[in-house]
Amino acid sequence: MAEPAQTLDGWYSLHDLRAMDWTAWKLLPSEDREVAIAEFHRFLNKLNVTQDAKEGSHALYTIVGQKADFMFMILRPTMEELNALENEFNKLKIAEFTIPTFSYVSVVELGNYMPSDENPYENPHVRERLYPILPKANHICFYPMDKRRQGNDNWYMLPMDERRSLMKSHGMIGRQYAGKVKQIITGSVGFDDYEWGVTLFADDVLQFKKLVYEMRFDEVSARYGEFGSFYVGNLLKEDAIAKFLSV
Amino acid sequence: MAEPAQTLDGWYSLHDLRAMDWTAWKLLPSEDREVAIAEFHRFLNKLNVTQDAKEGSHALYTIVGQKADFMFMILRPTMEELNALENEFNKLKIAEFTIPTFSYVSVVELGNYMPSDENPYENPHVRERLYPILPKANHICFYPMDKRRQGNDNWYMLPMDERRSLMKSHGMIGRQYAGKVKQIITGSVGFDDYEWGVTLFADDVLQFKKLVYEMRFDEVSARYGEFGSFYVGNLLKEDAIAKFLSV
Amino acid sequence: MAEPAQTLDGWYSLHDLRAMDWTAWKLLPSEDREVAIAEFHRFLNKLNVTQDAKEGSHALYTIVGQKADFMFMILRPTMEELNALENEFNKLKIAEFTIPTFSYVSVVELGNYMPSDENPYENPHVRERLYPILPKANHICFYPMDKRRQGNDNWYMLPMDERRSLMKSHGMIGRQYAGKVKQIITGSVGFDDYEWGVTLFADDVLQFKKLVYEMRFDEVSARYGEFGSFYVGNLLKEDAIAKFLSV
Amino acid sequence: MAEPAQTLDGWYSLHDLRAMDWTAWKLLPSEDREVAIAEFHRFLNKLNVTQDAKEGSHALYTIVGQKADFMFMILRPTMEELNALENEFNKLKIAEFTIPTFSYVSVVELGNYMPSDENPYENPHVRERLYPILPKANHICFYPMDKRRQGNDNWYMLPMDERRSLMKSHGMIGRQYAGKVKQIITGSVGFDDYEWGVTLFADDVLQFKKLVYEMRFDEVSARYGEFGSFYVGNLLKEDAIAKFLSV
Amino acid sequence: MAEPAQTLDGWYSLHDLRAMDWTAWKLLPSEDREVAIAEFHRFLNKLNVTQDAKEGSHALYTIVGQKADFMFMILRPTMEELNALENEFNKLKIAEFTIPTFSYVSVVELGNYMPSDENPYENPHVRERLYPILPKANHICFYPMDKRRQGNDNWYMLPMDERRSLMKSHGMIGRQYAGKVKQIITGSVGFDDYEWGVTLFADDVLQFKKLVYEMRFDEVSARYGEFGSFYVGNLLKEDAIAKFLSV
Repeated sequence: MAEPAQTLDGWYSLHDLRAMDWTAWKLLPSEDREVAIAEFHRFLNKLNVTQDAKEGSHALYTIVGQKADFMFMILRPTMEELNALENEFNKLKIAEFTIPTFSYVSVVELGNYMPSDENPYENPHVRERLYPILPKANHICFYPMDKRRQGNDNWYMLPMDERRSLMKSHGMIGRQYAGKVKQIITGSVGFDDYEWGVTLFADDVLQFKKLVYEMRFDEVSARYGEFGSFYVGNLLKEDAIAKFLSV
Repeated sequence: MAEPAQTLDGWYSLHDLRAMDWTAWKLLPSEDREVAIAEFHRFLNKLNVTQDAKEGSHALYTIVGQKADFMFMILRPTMEELNALENEFNKLKIAEFTIPTFSYVSVVELGNYMPSDENPYENPHVRERLYPILPKANHICFYPMDKRRQGNDNWYMLPMDERRSLMKSHGMIGRQYAGKVKQIITGSVGFDDYEWGVTLFADDVLQFKKLVYEMRFDEVSARYGEFGSFYVGNLLKEDAIAKFLSV
Repeated sequence: MAEPAQTLDGWYSLHDLRAMDWTAWKLLPSEDREVAIAEFHRFLNKLNVTQDAKEGSHALYTIVGQKADFMFMILRPTMEELNALENEFNKLKIAEFTIPTFSYVSVVELGNYMPSDENPYENPHVRERLYPILPKANHICFYPMDKRRQGNDNWYMLPMDERRSLMKSHGMIGRQYAGKVKQIITGSVGFDDYEWGVTLFADDVLQFKKLVYEMRFDEVSARYGEFGSFYVGNLLKEDAIAKFLSV
Repeated sequence: MAEPAQTLDGWYSLHDLRAMDWTAWKLLPSEDREVAIAEFHRFLNKLNVTQDAKEGSHALYTIVGQKADFMFMILRPTMEELNALENEFNKLKIAEFTIPTFSYVSVVELGNYMPSDENPYENPHVRERLYPILPKANHICFYPMDKRRQGNDNWYMLPMDERRSLMKSHGMIGRQYAGKVKQIITGSVGFDDYEWGVTLFADDVLQFKKLVYEMRFDEVSARYGEFGSFYVGNLLKEDAIAKFLSV
Repeated sequence: MAEPAQTLDGWYSLHDLRAMDWTAWKLLPSEDREVAIAEFHRFLNKLNVTQDAKEGSHALYTIVGQKADFMFMILRPTMEELNALENEFNKLKIAEFTIPTFSYVSVVELGNYMPSDENPYENPHVRERLYPILPKANHICFYPMDKRRQGNDNWYMLPMDERRSLMKSHGMIGRQYAGKVKQIITGSVGFDDYEWGVTLFADDVLQFKKLVYEMRFDEVSARYGEFGSFYVGNLLKEDAIAKFLSV
């Protein structure tokens, strides 16, 4: 048996994607729509309070194309809190006018192919990455992925050394995009249908394409990457919600 | 032909996952919602009576993400009883506000790679595992799986000895999680679309990820495991149902 | 080109699976429900008359889990009769409260790997198997399947002799279940999405699992079997329909 | 690069499959149903006029099982005409009571592995096959298919000579069914999700099974055939439409 | 690691496919339908203004078969503009009578296997291809595709030289169709589920089939092409919209 890499696990994560039922939303009287939007803002304010206290974080983006109209990404210390927020959102008035299109359950994860003596959970730099405050970048890109286990291309049968060396070269590519793309890896083995979720943030949306395309030629992706759907979107600032929802 | 392993089979099992139609539920007058919740509790009481008599068992968990809002797992001595309970639930008022999202039909199964002289069905330790009272752990994880039959990775073409030795090392990993994760394997060959269902219970949800991830590097999973969807959730205690359903 | 086996073909077969729309059914006034049930019984009586005359056969089972609430299996001498019955059912009142979930079109088939001089269609034993009266066993199991054509595991490229010898050993397993499991094979090449449908009848539902699991280790299944969904259910006797449909 | 075979292309083809919404249809007052049926017949009359003028052809069949209730196959000289007829049908009253379940866009195609000096489009025998009047056979069978491109089974990497010889032996099988099964091949590369559509007509429905099963053992199908869904049905004569639609 | 090809990226692209809900559209009073059509024309006029200013481009085609009734292809300099137009369309009256069936998010891309000294973004010929005004050809064909990464057929593991030489011969085929088929490649790595979208324009719809079929024998497609759904359609001129929508 190949030795598994150790992982560090931080906040639990929920990606929640919704399409708007615009026809039903238009049928709602305009004052009721305003009430629903106000209630939605109170929900967001609550999330902001948690984020200000560094007890969690969240992001809200529109999604381009028919896969969804908007996506929430929410980080919390426990699965119970994620579930409670999901249920709270589902009971909002605005939720009656949304159609769930995809969700993803995972936990912020740092691969730990480099062993160390110290307790990584006490390292401030590690903590910042395990409990991240999500950036307000212009764009988001989200996709789930697996490591392939197929015939001769079986990641989980590779010796630890080979995996470590492959991941190192893979990480090199990511590092070239430092300052342009912020990447958050969340692990979902045992939580959802893929093994990882990748969430990228960038001010220049083209950097997502450049990064993912360059990585695809790297052996880790070329031979061992299996990808789910890709979702790309634009920051939905709170003061732009009213316009987004105006009909 | 490779000799099949003998299995021991216990109670029949139904996993039943449902999303809530929150919009319709909100439209129901509040007194009718209370009546529906009370009726639901009577259904649960009936299940509790059966469980107290050790004639079956059940668990009720919320599910995180859009795949479902809650999941029942019900164990009974016969397929007829499972079907009757499923139909009884379907006729409850509350069921009108649920959307079926997934179900799984199987039977509690113990692999029996270790032959023995005694009748295992009379062994109290075996009986406890074939007719288990489901724990009230904080979290549940459920996924169906197959053993792969693909090119050179064909589990069912391996000699019995090799399968036995692979399963033994696989079991070793599980044993390291004793006290942290309780695992119930249900067999579904001939009953549902995968060959097994795996249901895990843990107080610390992260143990699901650690266990499944570690196992993935084991040859049984790495070369021979094919996994369906993963569902993860939180215990829904009976006294928390009213809050879960309050809108 | 490998020589194809000859097959013997009997009655045409339709498996028709339906979920109940319990919410709509409950909304129907109770006298209308009774009228619908009475009409349904008249439809069943008609099927019974045909079956008594040995001009066809049918079976009605509930299905466990969310894949369906009940399944019809209908056998008739012509595709036109199957289609007419399907349309007749679709126009019944009760059909308005059902949701089609799966169907399968095939024809009762006997593999004929053993050549013979006589005309098999005149052999009474063969006729009984080509034009079977379906048993009233407690349980049914239905699944469609293909023979694999993938890389080195290509059934249709094997020489006739090898296929014959593989099928013979496969048949041996089935024969061990004689008296416990009745198996009806229907061929669907050119009629539906898989190549065969397998319908099993047993009084002890666990025999389905034992039979299918044992067969999976046989080379025919292990290397060459591709399986669709499995449906398992319980006999729905005519005098139990009212209870099944009571809300 | 392997040299592609030349193809001859005739009329454009649309297969359009629909389920009936019987519940809604029954709710329509009987006089409105008659008006809708009369309008449908006017649409069919128009198709008949075109067919009588040999400027196109069409067929109307019921489909057995839940995949659809009926299927149109329409042939026309241009893609614009197909689209116009599709839109015209969609605007009929009867269309309001149908649910689209599958469609296929292609063009009548003759493989041309045998080169020739003459202009095949001027050969009357070829023209008859490129611009066919569809037969009124009792039964239809339709399925889309691809030629496989997988590992060592890659049709498109085979040399022309090998493909020609494989197709020749494949054609031999078809020829044995002359007089029993009429086969129309339509090409859909660039038009729809598979590469070809196969439409078979026969008075004896069992011939579909015999033909497709026999072909499956031929190397072209065994190693290189990838099949979509199979649809089988019965001729719906115009004077039987009223009965088909009577509720 | 194989060196990735450099790409040039132009306008962002959205393909948006919709089915009409003809039944609901017919229920709308005729004056309301006229208002909706007029509003739709104002939306198109706005797109025309942008196109006249060469700040974007768009195309509107009907789609043959049930996959959709019409398709928009919209090109804009930013992802935000695409998203804004998508939302604007979604809020139109006409959108209430459409059902989203597929969409695709990408960016106009030129493969750049030929290195050069000059800045290609300043080359007028390159600019014309990166920021194209879409032609008003009679027909459109759209399909997404991947380069395969499977066993021995792994595009991303090939050395740059081999990929360059394969792409060159592939391009040769395309060049033979110059004047008959205009091809626009859009890259979607990181943006949508496939790696590229291919959009073809032609006055003779048969040229799509000839081109795609010929290319399929080319090693790039034969061994390395994985294709999504194909959509084919006819130009929907603005002055034909009223007729298309008349019921």
